[in-house]
Amino acid sequence: MILDVDLTSETPIYQQIRDRVVEGIAAGELADGDPLPSTRQLAVDLGINFHTVNKAYGQLRREGLLLITRKSGAVVQRTPGAPDDWPARLKTLLAEAIAHGMSERDVLSQCETTLRTFDEVPA
Amino acid sequence: MILDVDLTSETPIYQQIRDRVVEGIAAGELADGDPLPSTRQLAVDLGINFHTVNKAYGQLRREGLLLITRKSGAVVQRTPGAPDDWPARLKTLLAEAIAHGMSERDVLSQCETTLRTFDEVPA
Repeated sequence: MILDVDLTSETPIYQQIRDRVVEGIAAGELADGDPLPSTRQLAVDLGINFHTVNKAYGQLRREGLLLITRKSGAVVQRTPGAPDDWPARLKTLLAEAIAHGMSERDVLSQCETTLRTFDEVPA
Repeated sequence: MILDVDLTSETPIYQQIRDRVVEGIAAGELADGDPLPSTRQLAVDLGINFHTVNKAYGQLRREGLLLITRKSGAVVQRTPGAPDDWPARLKTLLAEAIAHGMSERDVLSQCETTLRTFDEVPA
């Protein structure tokens, strides 16, 4: 997978890296045992500080999606079970669309469409 | 609506206030024109700094859900149309559940269940 970030976005870079990895796992582009680039390599590739990559990898480790060892570096390792606060965060995010006048039908349709993107055959 | 916050949560208080207001609007407990408590009153009620309430209200104003005037204080005023980055944030959040092994069917079912909670008749 290509880990692409938008340096002009308001979303912090570490958050973008974390999000892209999560989406890569969901789409099957990254499977258990797959290595991520080393923090220094990814920092060079993206033209960012390696502490930023470290922060992203550290969060993914705490989230139970990454194993980090001295020997193998960062390797995808998924812990089953969505985080405890996931339903609450889903509620807030769906509420945001409803609060802005989106219909429940459109919100649900957007959820379906989004989930289908994870089905695509990995490149 | 009762604006309740959890002072022990890792989620920042201003974020909790913002989230509860968004959910209150989605659930129809707060409609256009409804006033929110004054920042000082809410701060006293919750036992928090009024700057924290200001930060929450300011974010809701920037999100297009709140009008703040000197005369009327904070009043709900919904701007139609979900934020531009909402689909991307939805994708990341749904990906998180899939990455942790939740099935697409279960994720969609959770979305449906969540949306139904906004249908309940306001108390």
